[in-house]
Amino acid sequence: MIFKAIVSYDGTRYFGWQKTRMGPNIQEKIASAILQITGEQVLPEAASRTDRGVHAEGQVIQFNLNKEYEPHRLQRSLNAVLPSDIRIARLEFASADFHPTLDALAKEYHYRISLGPVQEPIDRLYAWHFHSPLDLEKMKIAANDLIGTHDFTALSNERSNEKEKDPLCKLMQIEIDCMDQGHLQLKITGNRFLYKMARNIAGILVYIGCGKLSQDCILSIIASRDRKKAGVTAPAHGLFLHKVFY
Amino acid sequence: MIFKAIVSYDGTRYFGWQKTRMGPNIQEKIASAILQITGEQVLPEAASRTDRGVHAEGQVIQFNLNKEYEPHRLQRSLNAVLPSDIRIARLEFASADFHPTLDALAKEYHYRISLGPVQEPIDRLYAWHFHSPLDLEKMKIAANDLIGTHDFTALSNERSNEKEKDPLCKLMQIEIDCMDQGHLQLKITGNRFLYKMARNIAGILVYIGCGKLSQDCILSIIASRDRKKAGVTAPAHGLFLHKVFY
Repeated sequence: MIFKAIVSYDGTRYFGWQKTRMGPNIQEKIASAILQITGEQVLPEAASRTDRGVHAEGQVIQFNLNKEYEPHRLQRSLNAVLPSDIRIARLEFASADFHPTLDALAKEYHYRISLGPVQEPIDRLYAWHFHSPLDLEKMKIAANDLIGTHDFTALSNERSNEKEKDPLCKLMQIEIDCMDQGHLQLKITGNRFLYKMARNIAGILVYIGCGKLSQDCILSIIASRDRKKAGVTAPAHGLFLHKVFY
Repeated sequence: MIFKAIVSYDGTRYFGWQKTRMGPNIQEKIASAILQITGEQVLPEAASRTDRGVHAEGQVIQFNLNKEYEPHRLQRSLNAVLPSDIRIARLEFASADFHPTLDALAKEYHYRISLGPVQEPIDRLYAWHFHSPLDLEKMKIAANDLIGTHDFTALSNERSNEKEKDPLCKLMQIEIDCMDQGHLQLKITGNRFLYKMARNIAGILVYIGCGKLSQDCILSIIASRDRKKAGVTAPAHGLFLHKVFY
């Protein structure tokens, strides 16, 4: 019996999605909730291996149980034993061939930024505090140059343990929304994302917004394939995996 | 030298504004930051004694220092030593007769509610999760009956250690905003608030919204002066002291 779940989490205290000996991680917490409720030992697969400190509103996971369970009851039981910073927002049956990573057509990330000289304490774990003013028009012009299919090597970091084989990604949309006077939100949708690519996109757009990089630098930086030219990696705690499209 | 500061805090881990032996509190944390930076022992006064777990975006405090300090530098120094869940958002000189409680003309509280079957984990410390649907129109009609000057005994709790002398308060505004599909915010402005009155207003309006109380119950409940008729006290973690007016 294959289950598909939408999972939300506050990533603050976790070493990311993936099982690791470094410390607490989402994958093991969910596996241990499933074990506690069903007695079955499974390791759920996720659409995206979110990094340490990254949050999710719409992570999609898959797991396979031998016994039969009614999805609503299983969802309630899992939420009753999961830590309060991880929630199963939805749970349903999936077809036998469903794979959360391979079947994903696109992912939408949100990146939150809070502006002004002093950050509101309740934003401190959920938004990057940037105190210099940002020119939204410049950021929007630059964002437009990111749309389309490019070799995004300049906007990805190397993983220590593996090489990226295919650097081509297609970005469908970058929306820059002013939530209120003090908050910006970047909505970034693409067919796939290289390692730290969403945070590097947030970083380069912020550097363009504050004038550290020019609004027309994007195409030449992409062409250079040089990470060092593309500004800063925005911190993990501003990033949310918002939705996965199938 | 009298200083006036606007203070924001995440009240999650505090036993409220006021100094207490029960545990950590905002007043002592700020006093200890002032001591650390200036060497002067003062106990700041606040516009509102927020309860355990209540947050603030615009608490107003006053304190008196013997030595001279440039407000911007002092603000930066205090923020450097304060815990990250308390911030001095603004600091300025105040006139010698300024008193944050006595001079306050009005206070605006915000109360946040998240709806739907499962709460987003990042809302868990900052919004009351209420899973039954709420009828906003009924809540707005009822809110209208709360506006004006009334004896608010039915919407206040008794403090264990003191009697409320004057139960008359004037509510100027209650706005009920749908932030997005999953979030409501009540904006409640009044000249003064009795103990737990803001949370009791949120509680009665939610009970009216979900049909546990009728939309036209307000005036008779106020007239009864009976706390037991007025529904539930909404939990502390949804409440924000938003602004104090002078």
